Amino acid sequence: MPPLPDPTLTAILDRMPVARLALRELDDEPAALPIVFARAAGALWSPIDGKRKRGGATLGRLARLERAPRVMLVLDHYHPDWSTLWWLRLRCIAQVVVGEHAQWAAAVAALVDKYPQYQTTPLFRDEPIMVRLEWTSVTWWAAAPDGLTRWLAAQPARGDD
Amino acid sequence: MPPLPDPTLTAILDRMPVARLALRELDDEPAALPIVFARAAGALWSPIDGKRKRGGATLGRLARLERAPRVMLVLDHYHPDWSTLWWLRLRCIAQVVVGEHAQWAAAVAALVDKYPQYQTTPLFRDEPIMVRLEWTSVTWWAAAPDGLTRWLAAQPARGDD
Repeated sequence: MPPLPDPTLTAILDRMPVARLALRELDDEPAALPIVFARAAGALWSPIDGKRKRGGATLGRLARLERAPRVMLVLDHYHPDWSTLWWLRLRCIAQVVVGEHAQWAAAVAALVDKYPQYQTTPLFRDEPIMVRLEWTSVTWWAAAPDGLTRWLAAQPARGDD
Repeated sequence: MPPLPDPTLTAILDRMPVARLALRELDDEPAALPIVFARAAGALWSPIDGKRKRGGATLGRLARLERAPRVMLVLDHYHPDWSTLWWLRLRCIAQVVVGEHAQWAAAVAALVDKYPQYQTTPLFRDEPIMVRLEWTSVTWWAAAPDGLTRWLAAQPARGDD
């Protein structure tokens, strides 16, 4: 596939509400989990938010990321019409950050803008903790050459419009 | 979370059309990709099918699985109503199999039954190759205690009904 134009990539990152984060378990086995995320200051940010969690699982995730920060974020579109399928895979460096990070306010604003759910779900659970994902390479696939732009064109308008 | 009843697990596996497979790259970094799959003979089966692929990528995937067969399959439900979210994670042993496998016919039948798309998309591309995933453990999470059964109840009826 040819390189993905940056505006297409950022538009997809801003519109896709969920992605799957592939990471290494403490025993080095591969794992993945769905996350919400928003783009700000050239990176992606995923909060440890107030959605109901299993006890201990979240802290375990942070320990895994600190031990093995090289991860992959997968965004993909599934639909019964297989001519519309696509995926994006971003190799990322993960960093666990807390409230004093220089881009913290921008990240919070991006998350609240992207997810109206944070009007009722707490953005943080106990402490303010986010995972910052800096992507280092992007690969993609689409069943149709214009699959990504067609998907973007079909997304509802965002935010204040 | 309490153990998931087997009928709930198998019903979800039979209804969910897509999952993300987390695996290890040749350099041991974690990766994931979306796959289609069907359940037959106590395992899950995912074909190297005729959806348009990148050159070489498929063979690369098989080499990775043969080298590092311990993988994780993630099924999850995303919806703007976050009270409906859930995920299932299956630790699996992956095996690359070809047409002479004893359960081959059952696996093909399950895939064709689950995906009407295979009436027009070739089930195999070049050679008949499938990835067989045998799950060894299951963990799950749901935002609401009855999230999985509510999702199942909302799925359209399948196949011949």
